Amino acid sequence: MGNTIGKMFSVTSFGSSHGKAVGAVIDGCPANLELSPEDIQKELDKRKPGTSGVTTPRKEEDKVQILSGIFEGKTDGTPITGIVYNNNQHSKDYSMFKNTPRPSHGDYGWMSKYGNYDYNGGGRGSGRITIGHVIAGAIAKKLLKTKNIEIVSQVVQIGDIMAHSNDFDTVKENVEKNSVRCGDLEAAKAMEELILAKKQEGDSIGGIVETVAVGVPAGLGEPVFERLDGDLARILMNINAVKGVEIGFGFDVATSSASEINDEYYIEDNEIYTSTNSSGGIIGGISNGMPIISRIAVKPTPSISKCQKTVNLEKMEAKEISIQGRHDPCICPRATIVAQSSVAIVLADHMIRSGYIHPSNLEI
Amino acid sequence: MGNTIGKMFSVTSFGSSHGKAVGAVIDGCPANLELSPEDIQKELDKRKPGTSGVTTPRKEEDKVQILSGIFEGKTDGTPITGIVYNNNQHSKDYSMFKNTPRPSHGDYGWMSKYGNYDYNGGGRGSGRITIGHVIAGAIAKKLLKTKNIEIVSQVVQIGDIMAHSNDFDTVKENVEKNSVRCGDLEAAKAMEELILAKKQEGDSIGGIVETVAVGVPAGLGEPVFERLDGDLARILMNINAVKGVEIGFGFDVATSSASEINDEYYIEDNEIYTSTNSSGGIIGGISNGMPIISRIAVKPTPSISKCQKTVNLEKMEAKEISIQGRHDPCICPRATIVAQSSVAIVLADHMIRSGYIHPSNLEI
Amino acid sequence: MGNTIGKMFSVTSFGSSHGKAVGAVIDGCPANLELSPEDIQKELDKRKPGTSGVTTPRKEEDKVQILSGIFEGKTDGTPITGIVYNNNQHSKDYSMFKNTPRPSHGDYGWMSKYGNYDYNGGGRGSGRITIGHVIAGAIAKKLLKTKNIEIVSQVVQIGDIMAHSNDFDTVKENVEKNSVRCGDLEAAKAMEELILAKKQEGDSIGGIVETVAVGVPAGLGEPVFERLDGDLARILMNINAVKGVEIGFGFDVATSSASEINDEYYIEDNEIYTSTNSSGGIIGGISNGMPIISRIAVKPTPSISKCQKTVNLEKMEAKEISIQGRHDPCICPRATIVAQSSVAIVLADHMIRSGYIHPSNLEI
Amino acid sequence: MGNTIGKMFSVTSFGSSHGKAVGAVIDGCPANLELSPEDIQKELDKRKPGTSGVTTPRKEEDKVQILSGIFEGKTDGTPITGIVYNNNQHSKDYSMFKNTPRPSHGDYGWMSKYGNYDYNGGGRGSGRITIGHVIAGAIAKKLLKTKNIEIVSQVVQIGDIMAHSNDFDTVKENVEKNSVRCGDLEAAKAMEELILAKKQEGDSIGGIVETVAVGVPAGLGEPVFERLDGDLARILMNINAVKGVEIGFGFDVATSSASEINDEYYIEDNEIYTSTNSSGGIIGGISNGMPIISRIAVKPTPSISKCQKTVNLEKMEAKEISIQGRHDPCICPRATIVAQSSVAIVLADHMIRSGYIHPSNLEI
Repeated sequence: MGNTIGKMFSVTSFGSSHGKAVGAVIDGCPANLELSPEDIQKELDKRKPGTSGVTTPRKEEDKVQILSGIFEGKTDGTPITGIVYNNNQHSKDYSMFKNTPRPSHGDYGWMSKYGNYDYNGGGRGSGRITIGHVIAGAIAKKLLKTKNIEIVSQVVQIGDIMAHSNDFDTVKENVEKNSVRCGDLEAAKAMEELILAKKQEGDSIGGIVETVAVGVPAGLGEPVFERLDGDLARILMNINAVKGVEIGFGFDVATSSASEINDEYYIEDNEIYTSTNSSGGIIGGISNGMPIISRIAVKPTPSISKCQKTVNLEKMEAKEISIQGRHDPCICPRATIVAQSSVAIVLADHMIRSGYIHPSNLEI
Repeated sequence: MGNTIGKMFSVTSFGSSHGKAVGAVIDGCPANLELSPEDIQKELDKRKPGTSGVTTPRKEEDKVQILSGIFEGKTDGTPITGIVYNNNQHSKDYSMFKNTPRPSHGDYGWMSKYGNYDYNGGGRGSGRITIGHVIAGAIAKKLLKTKNIEIVSQVVQIGDIMAHSNDFDTVKENVEKNSVRCGDLEAAKAMEELILAKKQEGDSIGGIVETVAVGVPAGLGEPVFERLDGDLARILMNINAVKGVEIGFGFDVATSSASEINDEYYIEDNEIYTSTNSSGGIIGGISNGMPIISRIAVKPTPSISKCQKTVNLEKMEAKEISIQGRHDPCICPRATIVAQSSVAIVLADHMIRSGYIHPSNLEI
Repeated sequence: MGNTIGKMFSVTSFGSSHGKAVGAVIDGCPANLELSPEDIQKELDKRKPGTSGVTTPRKEEDKVQILSGIFEGKTDGTPITGIVYNNNQHSKDYSMFKNTPRPSHGDYGWMSKYGNYDYNGGGRGSGRITIGHVIAGAIAKKLLKTKNIEIVSQVVQIGDIMAHSNDFDTVKENVEKNSVRCGDLEAAKAMEELILAKKQEGDSIGGIVETVAVGVPAGLGEPVFERLDGDLARILMNINAVKGVEIGFGFDVATSSASEINDEYYIEDNEIYTSTNSSGGIIGGISNGMPIISRIAVKPTPSISKCQKTVNLEKMEAKEISIQGRHDPCICPRATIVAQSSVAIVLADHMIRSGYIHPSNLEI
Repeated sequence: MGNTIGKMFSVTSFGSSHGKAVGAVIDGCPANLELSPEDIQKELDKRKPGTSGVTTPRKEEDKVQILSGIFEGKTDGTPITGIVYNNNQHSKDYSMFKNTPRPSHGDYGWMSKYGNYDYNGGGRGSGRITIGHVIAGAIAKKLLKTKNIEIVSQVVQIGDIMAHSNDFDTVKENVEKNSVRCGDLEAAKAMEELILAKKQEGDSIGGIVETVAVGVPAGLGEPVFERLDGDLARILMNINAVKGVEIGFGFDVATSSASEINDEYYIEDNEIYTSTNSSGGIIGGISNGMPIISRIAVKPTPSISKCQKTVNLEKMEAKEISIQGRHDPCICPRATIVAQSSVAIVLADHMIRSGYIHPSNLEI
C-alpha cells in the first residue's frame, strides 16, 4: 500500500532492488506531449552509480523501456509505464542480514510490518526504487517545460562545507561539471575530498540538497490540507534518508523577526514581485510567482563497514555487524536528481489541478 | 479543494475567520469511543487566545458543539461534526486590506487563485481555521490513548533561546505551567521576555515547536509514498506559518557521520530498542517502536505594526502598510496544540490503516 | 468512513435522522458562483415530505443554513457547509427496534459493523441523510447551469404502470405538476392511485426513476476505473433503496443485436450526432455529447405495517414485527430529487476534472 | 487518469491492445500469501479468445510474468506487477478507422478527449485491457479464499434464452463444461446456437452475466458514499460494454410490494439468516452475511460486418463502414471472468478496510 502519489498527475511505483524490475506507471499525463525513451534515459543516467569516486562503484545499466502510453512519438493520455530490468543483482550473499536489522536501516520496521521481508540489497527499501521517481520526474519535467517551468537541484552542503552559488543558470551549468553535483565549483572540490576521506574511514557523511523551480505561476496549491508546501514536504520527506525539509528560509525563521524576513511587494513592468524571497515562493500554502525553493537534509548512508551493534531477531541475542560492500559514502550527489524529480511530480500535479495545464490534451 | 486529509481516519475542515462558523467533520473514527464535548473543549481552550501577554488579547469564546456522530455518549461510527460559531468577529474595518496584499501573508496567492477573496481577518487563511485541526486532534488523541499512545508538544526555541528539557513527563507537566508552553521553565521565562520585547517594538519573532509521541508500535507507515515521516511532514508543513519540518536529528544529519548517529539495536526484557534515537522513531518511512519526534520551524507572525512596503493591486501602485490590531507577537505557544493535533491525526489514521485499531468498532 | 465522494468537486456528508443536524461540506466549487440559501432551499423543498398523500405525512421544516464558503453573495473557493437542524425528531418510542432488525432494512448490517447503532428512525441509515445530497446537488446544478447543462428526473414506472414521456421540456414542466413527479400526467394519475392503494393495505411499492442531463459536452469520463458511467452507477447505487442502475438502453441490450441498437453517426450544421441514443450519451466510459440517460430501480419502502418475521438479537429468538408510523408508501417521488442531485454531483466533478470548468475561479 | 481503483487493495491498470504490453500493479495485498504465475495464468486462460466458435478466432498467448512483489513464493507486501506482452498485435491495417468513429464504439469520445488516439484495435479502449483486471482479480480471489470466500460467474441470459441454475456448486462445475460459460447446460446449448447464428449474419448479440460470492461476512461496506453495492456497481459498470448493473432482485423491485420481497430474518444454529435474498446480500450498503448477487447487462459487440452509417471526422462527411475482422459475436462468455475479477477486487478491498483481513501481513 502507499505506492501511488498524486491526484491528477499520479505515479505508481513498483519493484525492488533484487527482483526482476523496477519502474513506475504515470497516469494523468495529458496527450500530445512528445516523449521518447531518451528523455527519460538522460535523467536516469544522472542517478546512475559508478560514475565517480563519490558514488558506489556498483555498475548498473539502468536502461529504461516505455511499455505503454506513447502513440506515434507522443503521449496519448493513457498510463505511461517505464521499466528498468535489474541485471547486476546477483551473486552476493545477503543471508547474513536475514534476521539482523542494520542500524538506522529500514529493515527492522519492514520486517515488523510484513513478516516476509526481502533482505537482499534492501529489497524495496533500497535506494534503487527511486528509479521510479526519476522516470516519473523526467516526464513531469518535460511537461512543465511546455509552460516554461525549469527546475535545478544541487548539493549545497556536505558536512560543514557549504556552497555559495545561488544564480539559477550558473548552478544549472555547474552541477553537470562535478561529481558532487554542487553548483559552486570550489565548494564541490572540498566536498569531494571530504566524502573520499569518510569513505576511506569506512564511514559516510550527510548533507543538504536544494531544489529551485523557476517560472511557476502564482496560485498553485490547495489550502488547507493539500497546500503546495505540504505536498512538497511529503514527497521530499518520503525520499530515502531524508530527515528534514525546508521551504524558503526554513529553520532560520526561528531566529528571525518579521521585520527582517517579511517579503515586501513591488511592481515592475506591471507585474508583482517580492523584493526578497524568504517565503521560498509559497505563502499560505499557495505559490506567489517567485522561485519555489526547497531543501532536504540527507542523512549519511547507514551502511558502513565500521563495526556496529545490532541483534539477531530469531535468536533474540546481541551481535555485531560490519557492512561490507559497495555503498555510496554520501547519498547527496545522486539524491539531487531524486529531489528534482519529486518536486517536478508535485508541480506537474498542481499545474493540472490548478487549471494551468489541460488535464487530457496539451493542444487544447 | 484540498480541505480533507486522511485515508481511514479523515478530517474535512471548513469555515473562515469572519464567516458564521469554523469546524471539522471527522470520518472514520471507530464506534464505541467515549466522547463528550468537554474532551474537545479542553483542547480548544489550550489554543484559545487572550490568556496571556504572549498571545493576542483578542477574546474568543470558541465553544464547541458536536452536531453528529455520538450516540449515548459514544461514537457510533458515523461522521463526527464539531463546530464553533464565530462571535467576536465584528466591527473592525478591514477594507484597507481589500486589494492590498500584506507582506508574507497568504492573501496575494489566495486572491490570484480565487478572484473572490474574503480579506476580513484573513478569511480562510486565518490561523483561526486551525480550530478544525484541534477538534479532530482531540478525537484522535482520545482514540490513540486507548492504545496507550501519548503525545506532547512544547516550544523548544524562540529566537536564540533554547529549551533543554527532554524528559517526556517533565515536559508534559511543565507546558501547562507557563504561557509559552515550553517544557523548560527557565527557558520559558526568557522566551516570554523576548516575545514581550518584540511586541513592544511592533514586531514579532519565530521559533521551533517539538512534538513527541510515545507508545507508537513498530510497523506504522506505508512505503513508498505514504510513509509515516512523509505524512507527518505534509500535515505539519500545512500548518500556517510553518517553513520547515524535521524528524529525529533533522538538519543535524547534514554534519554527521553514520558512525556518530546510527541507532544501534539492543535487547531488553525480550524487546528490541535502539540505544539512541536520532532517527526519531521512523526509519525507511516506518515506525520502529521508539518515540516519534518531529520539529517545526514557525515563522514570526507576518502582521506587524512596523511599516512595510506593498502594492495596491487595483491601482497597480506602490503603497506602505502598518498592520494594527491584536496579533500574536509569536505564533509558537498556540501552535503547540495545532502541531500536536496534526501529529495525532496522522497517527490515528496509520494506527487504523496498519491494523492496530479496528476500523469500525473499538470493541472488536 | 466513506462519507466523502468526488475528486475535484467533493462532498462530505454528515448527520443522522435523530441527531442534532444533517448536512454536507462541499469542497472544490470554484469561486465566483452566485449562491444563496434560496438556491438550495428550493431543491430541499422538492424532497420535503408531507406535501401529498403519496409521501409520509411527517412534517419536516428542513430549513437550510449556509455556514461557510460564501463571500458577498458568491462562492469564494473555500468549502461550503450547508446544514439543516433536525426539529421534528422527538418523542416517538423507537426502543422496540433496539435489538430487532427490520426486514430489508440496513440496521442489521450497521449493528454488525459498528456495535453502537442509533436505532432511532434509522440513524444515519435513514433516507433523511439524503438532505446532504440535495444540498450538494443544488450547488452542482447551479454550477452546471453556467455551462448550459440541465438535468431532469422523473418517475417512469411504479409497479406495472409506465410513463411515456420523453421530451425533455415537457417532462421538466410536468414533474412539477403532480405529486408523483412523473413527466406523463396520465400515467401520474394511475401511479398515484396505485401508491394510495398500497398504502391502504399497509404495504408499499417500488418503481423506476429516470434522469436525463442535456448539454453535456463530449469527453467527460476517465477510463478505465473512473469512467463517467461507472461514477454515475456508484453514486446512484449508493442511494438508499436502489437495487439497479441502467445507462441508456440498460438491460434491454441483453435481448438486442448490434445492428438494432448501435448508434450511427451523422453530421448536422458541422456537428456530430448519433441518430439514436441507446448508449445513453456514454460510450467506452466517456460522454459523446448526446443526452446522458440513467435509470434506477427503487425498491418498495421496507417499513410496512404488515406483519413480518424477524429476530431479537439479544435473546436470539424469533419474533414478529409490524412497523407502524408515517412511512412513504413509495420512495420514488422523493427519490427523483436525490437521483438528480447525485447525477449533478458527478457531472460537476467531471466537468472540472476534464477542464471544462476552471477548478478555482469561474471568471477565468 | 483514472486507471487506479481501490483504497486499501488497489489496482493500477496499464497498456493497450497494440502497444508493447498490458498489465496491472496491485498494491495493498498483504504479505505471506502464496502466489505463483500459475495462479494468475489459469484465470487468464479463461479469458483467452480463440478457444471456441463463440469467441473471436484470434489467437493470443497471454502469458503472464510477475515482475515484482513476490519473495520466496509469497507476497511480501510490496506492489505486485503482472504483465502480458502483446505478441499477435501486428500486420492488420487499421488506418481505415483513423478518423472514422465506429458506431457505439468508444473511439469518438476518446478522440474528442485526447486528440492523440491509437485507433489500432481500439487502443486502450480495447477489451484486451481487461487482462489487467483478471491479473488483479486472480490475486484478490486467492486472498479471499484464505477467508473461505468463493466467487462464481455465469452467463444467465443471451438474447431471449435464460439459464435456470442457481445452485452455487452446480454452476461452478457447469461453467467450465461449455463454451458459453453458462451454469445451465441445456440453456448453454441454445445460447451457443443463437450466438453462432448471429455470427453467421455478420451481427452480434447481448446478454446478462451473474456473479455470486459466498462466504462474505456481515459488515462490509462504508455508508454513505463507499457502500459495498455502490463500489460493485462502479467497477462492474466500468467494464467495457456493460450498460446495467443489478444487486439482488434488481429491476424486478420496481414491480414488487415490500410484503412480497422483504427478506425476513430467522435463526438457525445460533446464526442469523434471511429466508429469501432479494437484497442480494447487501442492505443499506452493507453486507448482511448472505450471498452477494450481482448482474450486468452486456451489450452486443459493436463491431459488426453489417453495413453502418458513420462520418469521416477530418473531411466532416458521411460514410459507410463494414467492420471486418475477428470479433466476438457475443461478449458475455469472456466477460464472466472479468466480472468475477472485478467483484473479487472490490471484496478484497473491503475485507481489508473492514478489518477482516490484516492490511500488511496475512499471518497476523
